[in-house]
Amino acid sequence: MNDRIREILSWYTSENPGVRTNLARMLNHGRLGGTGKMVILPVDQGFEHGPARSFAPNPAGYDPRYHFQLAIEAGCNAYAAPLGFLEAGVSDYAGEIPLILKCNNHDVLNDERDPISAITSGVEDALRLGCVAVGFTIYPGSSERTTMYEQLRELAAEARAAGLAVVVWSYPRGSGLSKEGETAIDVVTYAAQIAAQMGAHIIKVKLPSAKVELPEAQKVYQKYEIPISTLSERVSHVIQSAFDGRRIVIFSGGATAADEQVFNEVRAIRDGGGFGSIIGRNSFQRKKEDALKFLDTIMGIYEGSIQ
Amino acid sequence: MNDRIREILSWYTSENPGVRTNLARMLNHGRLGGTGKMVILPVDQGFEHGPARSFAPNPAGYDPRYHFQLAIEAGCNAYAAPLGFLEAGVSDYAGEIPLILKCNNHDVLNDERDPISAITSGVEDALRLGCVAVGFTIYPGSSERTTMYEQLRELAAEARAAGLAVVVWSYPRGSGLSKEGETAIDVVTYAAQIAAQMGAHIIKVKLPSAKVELPEAQKVYQKYEIPISTLSERVSHVIQSAFDGRRIVIFSGGATAADEQVFNEVRAIRDGGGFGSIIGRNSFQRKKEDALKFLDTIMGIYEGSIQ
Amino acid sequence: MNDRIREILSWYTSENPGVRTNLARMLNHGRLGGTGKMVILPVDQGFEHGPARSFAPNPAGYDPRYHFQLAIEAGCNAYAAPLGFLEAGVSDYAGEIPLILKCNNHDVLNDERDPISAITSGVEDALRLGCVAVGFTIYPGSSERTTMYEQLRELAAEARAAGLAVVVWSYPRGSGLSKEGETAIDVVTYAAQIAAQMGAHIIKVKLPSAKVELPEAQKVYQKYEIPISTLSERVSHVIQSAFDGRRIVIFSGGATAADEQVFNEVRAIRDGGGFGSIIGRNSFQRKKEDALKFLDTIMGIYEGSIQ
Amino acid sequence: MNDRIREILSWYTSENPGVRTNLARMLNHGRLGGTGKMVILPVDQGFEHGPARSFAPNPAGYDPRYHFQLAIEAGCNAYAAPLGFLEAGVSDYAGEIPLILKCNNHDVLNDERDPISAITSGVEDALRLGCVAVGFTIYPGSSERTTMYEQLRELAAEARAAGLAVVVWSYPRGSGLSKEGETAIDVVTYAAQIAAQMGAHIIKVKLPSAKVELPEAQKVYQKYEIPISTLSERVSHVIQSAFDGRRIVIFSGGATAADEQVFNEVRAIRDGGGFGSIIGRNSFQRKKEDALKFLDTIMGIYEGSIQ
Amino acid sequence: MNDRIREILSWYTSENPGVRTNLARMLNHGRLGGTGKMVILPVDQGFEHGPARSFAPNPAGYDPRYHFQLAIEAGCNAYAAPLGFLEAGVSDYAGEIPLILKCNNHDVLNDERDPISAITSGVEDALRLGCVAVGFTIYPGSSERTTMYEQLRELAAEARAAGLAVVVWSYPRGSGLSKEGETAIDVVTYAAQIAAQMGAHIIKVKLPSAKVELPEAQKVYQKYEIPISTLSERVSHVIQSAFDGRRIVIFSGGATAADEQVFNEVRAIRDGGGFGSIIGRNSFQRKKEDALKFLDTIMGIYEGSIQ
Repeated sequence: MNDRIREILSWYTSENPGVRTNLARMLNHGRLGGTGKMVILPVDQGFEHGPARSFAPNPAGYDPRYHFQLAIEAGCNAYAAPLGFLEAGVSDYAGEIPLILKCNNHDVLNDERDPISAITSGVEDALRLGCVAVGFTIYPGSSERTTMYEQLRELAAEARAAGLAVVVWSYPRGSGLSKEGETAIDVVTYAAQIAAQMGAHIIKVKLPSAKVELPEAQKVYQKYEIPISTLSERVSHVIQSAFDGRRIVIFSGGATAADEQVFNEVRAIRDGGGFGSIIGRNSFQRKKEDALKFLDTIMGIYEGSIQ
Repeated sequence: MNDRIREILSWYTSENPGVRTNLARMLNHGRLGGTGKMVILPVDQGFEHGPARSFAPNPAGYDPRYHFQLAIEAGCNAYAAPLGFLEAGVSDYAGEIPLILKCNNHDVLNDERDPISAITSGVEDALRLGCVAVGFTIYPGSSERTTMYEQLRELAAEARAAGLAVVVWSYPRGSGLSKEGETAIDVVTYAAQIAAQMGAHIIKVKLPSAKVELPEAQKVYQKYEIPISTLSERVSHVIQSAFDGRRIVIFSGGATAADEQVFNEVRAIRDGGGFGSIIGRNSFQRKKEDALKFLDTIMGIYEGSIQ
Repeated sequence: MNDRIREILSWYTSENPGVRTNLARMLNHGRLGGTGKMVILPVDQGFEHGPARSFAPNPAGYDPRYHFQLAIEAGCNAYAAPLGFLEAGVSDYAGEIPLILKCNNHDVLNDERDPISAITSGVEDALRLGCVAVGFTIYPGSSERTTMYEQLRELAAEARAAGLAVVVWSYPRGSGLSKEGETAIDVVTYAAQIAAQMGAHIIKVKLPSAKVELPEAQKVYQKYEIPISTLSERVSHVIQSAFDGRRIVIFSGGATAADEQVFNEVRAIRDGGGFGSIIGRNSFQRKKEDALKFLDTIMGIYEGSIQ
Repeated sequence: MNDRIREILSWYTSENPGVRTNLARMLNHGRLGGTGKMVILPVDQGFEHGPARSFAPNPAGYDPRYHFQLAIEAGCNAYAAPLGFLEAGVSDYAGEIPLILKCNNHDVLNDERDPISAITSGVEDALRLGCVAVGFTIYPGSSERTTMYEQLRELAAEARAAGLAVVVWSYPRGSGLSKEGETAIDVVTYAAQIAAQMGAHIIKVKLPSAKVELPEAQKVYQKYEIPISTLSERVSHVIQSAFDGRRIVIFSGGATAADEQVFNEVRAIRDGGGFGSIIGRNSFQRKKEDALKFLDTIMGIYEGSIQ
Repeated sequence: MNDRIREILSWYTSENPGVRTNLARMLNHGRLGGTGKMVILPVDQGFEHGPARSFAPNPAGYDPRYHFQLAIEAGCNAYAAPLGFLEAGVSDYAGEIPLILKCNNHDVLNDERDPISAITSGVEDALRLGCVAVGFTIYPGSSERTTMYEQLRELAAEARAAGLAVVVWSYPRGSGLSKEGETAIDVVTYAAQIAAQMGAHIIKVKLPSAKVELPEAQKVYQKYEIPISTLSERVSHVIQSAFDGRRIVIFSGGATAADEQVFNEVRAIRDGGGFGSIIGRNSFQRKKEDALKFLDTIMGIYEGSIQ
């Protein structure tokens, strides 16, 4: 194990060796293994957005085995999915890639203003499926957030005791926020801080805009002239907000976008000190050979072989 | 055991052998045993709609033993009912047909906009009654869906550990959907996907219409020209949406309809790659000899002896 | 289900339908299905006597899959084995033959005068492996019998609650008996009675000799002139001793013997009203084609096609 | 309910109403119902002595249903048996006679000096079989008695909490006593006292002889000239020893004896204030019509219609 | 994952994907990763034999970190040790090598004839330390074996549910065997069979001698002319005895021996179809550079680069 991975693990020394072992499994796996950077393939969109919106662009993705294959061939650090998708494929790929069980899920068949996900699996499932981590989404900004935080607390405590890492998707949403506010820099950094304070080992947030949502925050950002004009600066500020770089924070790719835009975002994450990307739709919604090439470029940027 | 049944069971190899044994018991039982197709008799309408609406058309159906007899004589793969109906008849028919215990139920004496069923039985009941599976209804689209998903998760985990299969009735309903939207193709496929992601082994949905309910979905269906004009195409799209054919999906017969219409629906299910039908009212609401003849034709269509 | 099987199940109506369903699964399976007679393949000798003594005569038997195949091809009613043998094969044969999990086992590497078996598996294992029954050995005559009876009581209570049948191997042994006394008619009938009183659904005993071991019993056998001179009479007396024929009692084949002797024993079991045989070494210690022919003759005798 | 039964129940007012309800069920059932006297049929000899010794004299008794029929037709207050015998018949006779589940049993295939029975069933079994009481044997005098007392304590506590009555067979045996000492008056009264102190609701002892076993006791019996010369006096002394008549004590009939001797013993029990008899072998080891006549006479003596 | 590892994992398909993932982690790790062969470093001798006997030959071994370093540098597939040794080093090496927690241990400060190890850790420890497996020793031949088998059963059930593999050290010892009998071929194969029947995923036995200990076994070995004259033949017979090669069996190196003898034993293991070695004293009782060279040769023999 190289020094960079040892350094990252040193931030988690209050955790038991099982948690650190599973963090190491992700950090040392795949093409970026050992770099301290991660690219994770998440496929929960079938549940979150419905099957056609998720898989019609590349119908191979209807098959649960496809995503295992894609993640393995691309050399991702891990593959994250809900119970059903993991169960339907894991038997064929046991031991080939670190798995993250996404333990809560949300659908859009009832469009509520203050969303909360349903708990759909747990630590026992993660252990019997051979996962390295559990994943959980919280929606800071929702009036239901207290319930979600408390669910996360229980899941995380159980996971930690079993040596599993905890990955938190921290996505501001709900009646407390404007639509633009969901990606405002003060809100995203706040979401990262909340996840870190709750004990998340890996934090997933969206790339922030330069908007500052909350009036009290606006005063501070102005007074202290916090640099947030470039994406790289904003990434750096997110990393700072998650324990000054001592927690792994990765960024979601969002909906399909032009490749070059994504690559530039990855450059900004890299340059801002981010730890990597979790890229779902942008990868599995194109043909596999295109996806492999696309992910190859991203990993190249992270490892520095591509500027 | 023939190759087709082995192939179907191979989709469930992350499950323990007990679950696979009970799936095999259904797949190998009755007239369609070994074909990979299933016809299941469900009788929960007494609870769901009230006794007279359910049994007045054929009063023999008030007697719980009648439905055991009908399912056995017709050669169904399984019989599904709530606790009371199973308890009142199982002693006379133990070991004669695979049983599915319907573990939640809903009545219409309080007409809520966002329905949720009551949990009326569980895994211990299923074991003591000799069942092969538990059944559970979820209503995607209801504001109560989160609670239902979490109830399903707990039931399914317990069932799986005890080697029982999990059958999910996934019926979109509630304030999130228009009435027509309940059977819209994008909504039905979404409901199938949710059930599959939650770990259902057998998924029961309604036959979908060509309507696309959700605006975000409409864009996708148009852009990718997903073929949904014929019922057979829509069945095929449902099967695709439930892990690309790697989960057993069966279709409900709905309210009483003209026989020829039902037979055509069965042809469409067969031709679209569906795994069978779950037919309640259309069978038990007519005299037994008529019902047997009716089911005989349906099974003939599935096995291919009738075009 | 035919009248004979219904009659047999009627003896167990104080049990829940799950237990009766699993009894029916065995009674209705295989070539003797529906006759009320059973031939079960047990393979626990690897543990009980060691691998070479068990499998050297037919080395194919070292492979756990062989015994599944043999039992299935021969049309046995069930296959019984310890945890390891079932686990190592069940995945390939799930749903093809009723399985009995032998839950305690004994080896001969420490030759104690008063034996007791170790509990090696339990009801949770039986459920996850899809078994229809648990099996348990008691050694009446051993000073350790009290412990064994209490272990059986706990296992049986748990099994029954889970709808599993209970098969008891009741083998008199230990310091309370002479070597010949282990198969004495009064001792074997006593062992059958004890198993029945403890709630066994299926009782396995050895074929008894005409010897009467216990002095108190000798007086009774003489006074009432209980007919025990022929094997058929003795079988009949065993059946009588297990609730007058209202419990299923099957007989073990013992060590390898000349075929004609075994066939004559089977005839005696049949004529004495026994319910069948559990034949291990005599079947799996010969080549498969010989074993199939051998079992074919035995089943022919039971079904009456061979006199 | 008449005054005598109310009086008897008044001795148990520290027990919950459930226990008293079940005592009342026995006291008010059968021909002696309401008299305060009881005749109970116990059939555990199949386990305790073996089947032939128990049932060869009247082979109808091999059938578990026979004993239900005998107890019902004779008008006994209750029928007591081990798990297997109750399970194999209760389904046909549920609700026809109060049942006592004999929860521990002993066999004679290993003849130990200090016996202990095996626990073969428990309170959950008693409840599911619809019993009014649990029965348990202790062997005061055995070096294993401490274990038995503690087992009784646990069973009784659980039974009481479930509203079941507790019947204790208190039979002195073991290395602490001479053979004759097992029925010595000081030993039998001591056994009755122990059972009463342990919370037994109904105590079953053997009829005592005039022998005094223990030296310390001999001094007392002499000094205070305790009258024990007639059987009636000894019965009276046993009743006195079990809380001065405030616990129900019944007497076992022992091995088969001449009828007139039994009748005289019953007269002595009646005249000494005993509460009745528990008569197994003397009743079920003769033809049913003889047994009915025999029990009719005994009940006549207890009710006073026969002197 | 290559075909050989997939083939090995296919023997365990009745286990959950977690167990298979952890087996894969060992099989794919280190210099022999992917070959299907394993070399494991076990260091429990400090507990089993005392510290000086274990570590004086190479005092570096007193330090728990030394053995992690040795196993990692040598490229072993796994490192196995008791709780204390793992706890004292794992924090520095989390994620660098698969760990096996040895869950029971025995010392020689009380030299009993029939040994039993103490349970010193369990599944919760294994999870929090990030282990891939639990290890457990049984002593077939000891009069305490029943207790050990039942302890193993409980540990294995719990481990399996948590997705951990189960490694069994099956070492015949105790009053039932002569000293030479402990490594007799019939005894070693019997020990392997017992471990397999109890559900072990990996079985560790000693290299067997050509002696046949048990009289009943001697007859069989002679009659069937089982080839056991060379070590390679004996290894082959052990593998056959553990489910005909469908369970991973590895061999212990025993006490310090001349290098060439060890290499020849490894050649025999390889040629007989064994799955590898577990080498403690022969490796950690020499200086690290010698040990690395020694293990390098052994691995070379297994991978075929050295004949």
